[in-house]
Amino acid sequence: MLEPASYQQVTDWLDARTAEPAPEDLATARSPGRVLAGGVSVPDDYPAAPTAAADGYALLSQATLGASDYNPLPLRIGSTVEPVVSGQRLPGNTDAVIRHEDTDRRGEVLDVYAPVASGDNVIPVGREARRGETLFGAGHVLRPADVALLIELGVATVPVVRRPRIGVVVVRGDVPDACGPMVRALVAMDGGAGDQPVHPDETGLAAALAGRDDDLLIVIGGSGTGGNDHAAEALREAGEVTFRGVAISPGETVTLGVVRGRPVIVLPGPPLAALCAYDMLAGRAVRQLAGRSPRLPYGTRRGTLVRKIASGLGRLECCRVRVIGERVEPIAVADNRTLSTAVRADGFVLVPEQSEGFAEGDEVTVYLYAQRY
Amino acid sequence: MLEPASYQQVTDWLDARTAEPAPEDLATARSPGRVLAGGVSVPDDYPAAPTAAADGYALLSQATLGASDYNPLPLRIGSTVEPVVSGQRLPGNTDAVIRHEDTDRRGEVLDVYAPVASGDNVIPVGREARRGETLFGAGHVLRPADVALLIELGVATVPVVRRPRIGVVVVRGDVPDACGPMVRALVAMDGGAGDQPVHPDETGLAAALAGRDDDLLIVIGGSGTGGNDHAAEALREAGEVTFRGVAISPGETVTLGVVRGRPVIVLPGPPLAALCAYDMLAGRAVRQLAGRSPRLPYGTRRGTLVRKIASGLGRLECCRVRVIGERVEPIAVADNRTLSTAVRADGFVLVPEQSEGFAEGDEVTVYLYAQRY
Repeated sequence: MLEPASYQQVTDWLDARTAEPAPEDLATARSPGRVLAGGVSVPDDYPAAPTAAADGYALLSQATLGASDYNPLPLRIGSTVEPVVSGQRLPGNTDAVIRHEDTDRRGEVLDVYAPVASGDNVIPVGREARRGETLFGAGHVLRPADVALLIELGVATVPVVRRPRIGVVVVRGDVPDACGPMVRALVAMDGGAGDQPVHPDETGLAAALAGRDDDLLIVIGGSGTGGNDHAAEALREAGEVTFRGVAISPGETVTLGVVRGRPVIVLPGPPLAALCAYDMLAGRAVRQLAGRSPRLPYGTRRGTLVRKIASGLGRLECCRVRVIGERVEPIAVADNRTLSTAVRADGFVLVPEQSEGFAEGDEVTVYLYAQRY
Repeated sequence: MLEPASYQQVTDWLDARTAEPAPEDLATARSPGRVLAGGVSVPDDYPAAPTAAADGYALLSQATLGASDYNPLPLRIGSTVEPVVSGQRLPGNTDAVIRHEDTDRRGEVLDVYAPVASGDNVIPVGREARRGETLFGAGHVLRPADVALLIELGVATVPVVRRPRIGVVVVRGDVPDACGPMVRALVAMDGGAGDQPVHPDETGLAAALAGRDDDLLIVIGGSGTGGNDHAAEALREAGEVTFRGVAISPGETVTLGVVRGRPVIVLPGPPLAALCAYDMLAGRAVRQLAGRSPRLPYGTRRGTLVRKIASGLGRLECCRVRVIGERVEPIAVADNRTLSTAVRADGFVLVPEQSEGFAEGDEVTVYLYAQRY
């Protein structure tokens, strides 16, 4: 019989083993979506010289004084009247850009139909960024535009969190394997990398665990009781079992331990239990190793319960719900075994360990499954 | 001089050319995150037979009547008292599962310490899904748990929207290229596939466009005026230009046309204009081709403007803002040229074509850049 550890105790243990993500340097062009492992500073003022902000002609603004549709000023193309395109550095003797639509070119003469002031259509030195400025701090997730700006600034590589290698080992002899692809997809969404799940047979399991070199190893199946404890036994043989069962539901048989100094999480084989135990424990570890927030990555919304949720004191319960407008409807509260309760749900409500549930009419927070893609 | 088309006119044209995403059949295990191109029905009741929902012993419930801690009932292991693990089909002559913790085994005798009712710890036939039931409709994005359930149900392949091939051709001679990696990342986030950006020289551009076979071609740079219109000219040469300029800002020189029956979008070369024109036009096309909603994929929130936003009548304006609590602060409204205004922003506010802007104190919707990873 299992004596489950408290959720808090287990997350404290797991957090301590996943709190220091490993850094690596990466070409800036390949870094969208990655998490910065350190701050990024601006190497030089950008732009380094006044730069055209429009297509047209760079010129001296004072030469356009008084120009209008009724009084076009003819200027000779030359060192102080030069065609430029947006983004191009201004020639030395010019201080403004006039747009094509305010000019008319006849051979080497440019008729100017409007005045421009000094600095018009020009990006001044350092307008984008100042030398030494810290543009992004550690933990920032690089967005596509961030990457474009860093490339413009001449930042060739950035320090990012290395994608943690997450091994997925499937024990349960399901043919075909339903849990492996699910957990693999969850790992990828949480920022982990790794190969396809492997499926060693039960006799070779301990050796398979001992031979891995992942940052985190997720084993699926064999965490149960009676003859269904192959993975827990293999973990004991290959390393050590630290927690045999955790006070979460579904997923109470989840087992944690260590092999060669690396954390191992054995998820229960039934898919719903595997999903919930992944969400509450394994996903948290993957996200921490990937430099992300350990918090649940699902979008949330508030709503009002249309039926009560009863839960046992002392365990963290993940209750699947439907959301219809502001109404939150629990799905088959008693049914903690069928995956379709998660598939038919919009998300889930968590009932904390120290609570016996929520009453009809209570306002609750729903974590929304759908909002991760 | 450009005569920009209205945003509505251009999106109508673009939507008509991207409204029919192509389907393909994909192995279910590889389908997380993909969009269904058609509905998926349940092939057979699942489970097809009563199935154990816990580890323990399958037995006849009536044999446990009266069992208690004070009155353990000894049952002989055999065809009506068999060990089972969670997920295993129940033997024919049994109707319930008793958990290990309510039993004690002595050799071939099982002492039972609690009564179970018929169906206890059993998943009945069809509880997960019923034969013929439509589980997911076209347009549904497959979540990891959906995929696990489909595999359990025996659905080996699913009809999904083929990832559209999106070509990215960079014209502007930026060394290094800042826009290519940005647009490539945006395309991937919107569900498009394709190779790394290519960088043909200006003289070979028309031939490069004519030789492509993408579902959508995005060209970056050369949409401008004067000598900065190489891409627009190449598009005219390789196919046809349909819209030369669109009433959006930033990004007003964006140019659209057709080569070999496929839509081509020429984004302006300056990164901020490329970003906004991508968001408002190209991303919409990619998402439609990928079977997703054409709407902006950014999370939104409401807030109150702390300064007015002025905008020209007749153009759709994308105004970068910071969000501090409930307060929405426009960034450098006049500065439509520097990418750092987007990088320093939390998101943007859209000013519609028929509006001249918003007043201080107006409540506005902010599209949040950060919430896509």
